[in-house]
Amino acid sequence: MGEEASVTNLRNENGGNEDQNMEFDIYPLSSYYFGSKDAIPFKDLSLHNHLLRIQSNYAARGLRTSVEAVLLVELFKHPHLLLLQVRNSIYKLPGGRLRPDESDTDGLKRKLTRKLSVDEDGDGSEWEVGECLGMWWRPDFETLLYPFLPPNVKQPKECTKVFLVKLPASRKFIVPKNMRLLAVPLCQVHENLRTYGQIISGVPQLLSKFSFNMLES
Amino acid sequence: MGEEASVTNLRNENGGNEDQNMEFDIYPLSSYYFGSKDAIPFKDLSLHNHLLRIQSNYAARGLRTSVEAVLLVELFKHPHLLLLQVRNSIYKLPGGRLRPDESDTDGLKRKLTRKLSVDEDGDGSEWEVGECLGMWWRPDFETLLYPFLPPNVKQPKECTKVFLVKLPASRKFIVPKNMRLLAVPLCQVHENLRTYGQIISGVPQLLSKFSFNMLES
Repeated sequence: MGEEASVTNLRNENGGNEDQNMEFDIYPLSSYYFGSKDAIPFKDLSLHNHLLRIQSNYAARGLRTSVEAVLLVELFKHPHLLLLQVRNSIYKLPGGRLRPDESDTDGLKRKLTRKLSVDEDGDGSEWEVGECLGMWWRPDFETLLYPFLPPNVKQPKECTKVFLVKLPASRKFIVPKNMRLLAVPLCQVHENLRTYGQIISGVPQLLSKFSFNMLES
Repeated sequence: MGEEASVTNLRNENGGNEDQNMEFDIYPLSSYYFGSKDAIPFKDLSLHNHLLRIQSNYAARGLRTSVEAVLLVELFKHPHLLLLQVRNSIYKLPGGRLRPDESDTDGLKRKLTRKLSVDEDGDGSEWEVGECLGMWWRPDFETLLYPFLPPNVKQPKECTKVFLVKLPASRKFIVPKNMRLLAVPLCQVHENLRTYGQIISGVPQLLSKFSFNMLES
């Protein structure tokens, strides 16, 4: 392999195995439009508040299941993850809690529309929810999450599922005024537990099987 | 949801989304037989040796691509990962370097036969190589791996792909005498970077989307 080998070729060079080559198209940040809308309440301003809330809800409704979206754009030829920032230090993947009997896909579309679209009455069909990348379990009303159900845990308190959502070549994002939508490079998110928390800082690893096609819009 | 809810039901309770429920069958450790065979040379007894070797090989053959297998068994109702232990402190997923023009699947079957089967002349058809779970890149002849190609890295030196390999309900593992095959619980491997290294310690997260069906053999 000579000096000229491109990265794209490197990713595909071990022939005869096309079924294993997972490609994913991403488009430049500049191909999207960003606007704002009225603020929406944000309930969990601290982990402490969040834990109190899941505890009070658990008795009534049992396991809390949340769904979150991984949305990717290209900037400087590197994949960037779209994150919602609340106040200055809280970063979230767009998503939220499922309603009783709501499917993962329906719930995620509803939450994405609420947090990233202009029309809350839309049917969510604008969102293309792809595969589940991973799940995190909270065995008790404690801070630590696990990517498996730990041995002997029969009644986990929270499950968060992370889905890959495919963006079209262009679209509008309309973000509540009390949040900012940021594009953060995967290389900054990776293993940055302190800033982004367990779920977000693990996203680059969950995406590592993909080869990203960086397209023009 | 009452006190009696089983873990299996919890995992499936958000109905209407069956396509997203990734199930994976695993069998008890006791359903497998373990024997030994002659030692095989183990080249990389230290990371330092490994880095020297990929450096000397890079000039001649370019990017080094390795394939590794995630093999799972059940013990104490918790998934366990099969790891090869060399000397007392080196843990490896079974696998190894691809030959030029060898496909990921063919190469992994060849390596699994060499390290875990009785017959090195077999065609590898006994191994069922499943999906690619993740990839790790080494941008330079340095220790750190990344689950993405870092920005501006045009000529990575090593790529390691991790595949899920589905075990049958029963089989023999025949392990070279200079290695031990261990079943290590996912909860011990998880984020245990110091003992198991970047790739192995990240496997539980890469598996987190699966619901494990723990079957009787």
